[in-house]
Amino acid sequence: MLTLAHLISQIRPLDESAMHQARHHVDGLFKPVGSLGRLEDLAVQLAGIYRTHDIQPGPKEIIVMAADHGVFDEGIAVTPREVTASQALNMTRGKTGVCAVAAACGVRVQIVDIGIDCDPLPNVPSLKIARGCANIAKGPAMSRTDAEQLLLTSARYAMDQVASGIRVLGVGELGMGNTTPAAAMVSVMTGATPEQVVGLGANFPSDRLHHKVAVVRKAIAINRPVANDGLDVLAKISGFELVGMTGVMLGAAAAGVPLVLDGFLSYACALVACRIAPGVRAYLVPSHHSAEKGSQLALAHLDLKPFIHLELRLGEGSGAAMAMPFIDAACSMVQRMGRMEDNRVVLPRPA
Amino acid sequence: MLTLAHLISQIRPLDESAMHQARHHVDGLFKPVGSLGRLEDLAVQLAGIYRTHDIQPGPKEIIVMAADHGVFDEGIAVTPREVTASQALNMTRGKTGVCAVAAACGVRVQIVDIGIDCDPLPNVPSLKIARGCANIAKGPAMSRTDAEQLLLTSARYAMDQVASGIRVLGVGELGMGNTTPAAAMVSVMTGATPEQVVGLGANFPSDRLHHKVAVVRKAIAINRPVANDGLDVLAKISGFELVGMTGVMLGAAAAGVPLVLDGFLSYACALVACRIAPGVRAYLVPSHHSAEKGSQLALAHLDLKPFIHLELRLGEGSGAAMAMPFIDAACSMVQRMGRMEDNRVVLPRPA
Repeated sequence: MLTLAHLISQIRPLDESAMHQARHHVDGLFKPVGSLGRLEDLAVQLAGIYRTHDIQPGPKEIIVMAADHGVFDEGIAVTPREVTASQALNMTRGKTGVCAVAAACGVRVQIVDIGIDCDPLPNVPSLKIARGCANIAKGPAMSRTDAEQLLLTSARYAMDQVASGIRVLGVGELGMGNTTPAAAMVSVMTGATPEQVVGLGANFPSDRLHHKVAVVRKAIAINRPVANDGLDVLAKISGFELVGMTGVMLGAAAAGVPLVLDGFLSYACALVACRIAPGVRAYLVPSHHSAEKGSQLALAHLDLKPFIHLELRLGEGSGAAMAMPFIDAACSMVQRMGRMEDNRVVLPRPA
Repeated sequence: MLTLAHLISQIRPLDESAMHQARHHVDGLFKPVGSLGRLEDLAVQLAGIYRTHDIQPGPKEIIVMAADHGVFDEGIAVTPREVTASQALNMTRGKTGVCAVAAACGVRVQIVDIGIDCDPLPNVPSLKIARGCANIAKGPAMSRTDAEQLLLTSARYAMDQVASGIRVLGVGELGMGNTTPAAAMVSVMTGATPEQVVGLGANFPSDRLHHKVAVVRKAIAINRPVANDGLDVLAKISGFELVGMTGVMLGAAAAGVPLVLDGFLSYACALVACRIAPGVRAYLVPSHHSAEKGSQLALAHLDLKPFIHLELRLGEGSGAAMAMPFIDAACSMVQRMGRMEDNRVVLPRPA
């Protein structure tokens, strides 16, 4: 049986030797040294993750974790709660935002029911232990045991996807009301006030934002999550799909593949994942800069600079999908470009 | 025969009706209204360009204009001049940076010799009228007649590519020393001083930047280009491939396809293209934010916000290639996503 300690122990530091070789290779390509900017850094990171400088593009998948939230009852979202279930079904039909974008970017989308308040959905694999988590404004979202179990199951799910051939993983989510627990998580993990991190989510009316802030403040006050204990934060103020995303991050790192983040929800989970296992950080690849309010703060704490600025705020993994061609581009740069030595010319380094 | 007046007259305003229909369609997709941010705006722009809300992905190509510069002799670049020719040949072999990136993004690369200082290159179509333009630090780059002719030939080349099936055009360039004329163009077109716009290009030593600034200042002082006369600016202080890129922009707009910009060189040309034919602006799609110094200023004048922040400064069209999947994603959003009415749910609008 997989334990958390065992999972964490499988997360290796990046391969410094492969990274060194990759940097040397990239610096020898026929272009002014450094002129492909952060694409070069991405190639080096991928070399460290894959433990070879000979990085190759491979199958890419976004795991979309879907669940419902007890805190929905506090009136912190304006989208009907049933949309979590109906949109999960739409995922299997390729008709969601992330599916549309992913199709254009050559990315597979895998929906997972990790706690939707519905009967089993056709063609949707389930890791569900309950139909929606408890209301964080009244007590913990779930027990610590449930959080740990779900974290491990999700990590295992991600590792199984890698075992079946996936070489790049991304995260997405579905869960009406979930920017409220995510804001609580970011507040606790960064030390910022709820006012600084609570945003409008899916078009929540700005004149009721103070209520959402109050609910986040209440959730933190009632539960008193301990920031240094990631599992405590997950159990008390997150939700099933947020535990699931955190688990996928741990699983991707343990399986040795890059994990492409999405937006605000993924930043909240990444903060917790890196607290549980700091080694995860090296496997994270940013995608887009979410338009949700607390994003800048969360990204600064993660020390991540997203590549894409499209003011997306859909979630579902849509931003992760759009960044995945950049991973292919980094591999293609390494595989296809000619070298200075083939051209018998040395192009300039930065002076 | 194509005249400049006739070319300009073919550039139509975007189709407002198609844009209105596209916005209505996008607002009815099953997502919180506006949550796909600037991808939605891109879809609406594409609808206006293609004159239908039913936008479809199609073949994408980057035209890489390559030429040499007399101003190279002033010592404003550290890459050997011969690299323009050798890299043009590498383009036909798929071994350049833009070729590598474009392959990962499903984009075709078409190199064009528009004035390289070399004999004809195999598999490189030529629009060449001379082997390199004159030294702008001593006089005009070319005659006004040559500039106009090359502009029209390049526009015609772009229109022919569209006639043969290309549905998205991008621009790239090759030309050792060409950030010097581009900086002169940006300085003249924006009214900024050479100090504000001259950058390091391909790893030019920062301690010699003052010399590059002096050359730009000299080119402007000697030639006295008239900012309001785009053709005058091109003839006096640009170069053959910069005229070519400007022509491709006019041609793409005249042919009714989007034109994806690359970095600093393309911003300089876009400023001139929009002065010659203001209708071009609506056809421009930004890609990445170039790391070259004057980029922010040029982009502000163009009122364009790039989508991608990768600190690229290679040129060649590499940034344009990386943004092209976003055009496919915008089309895919329109084509594949389910609608609110199919889900019998209305998702919230921004309050």
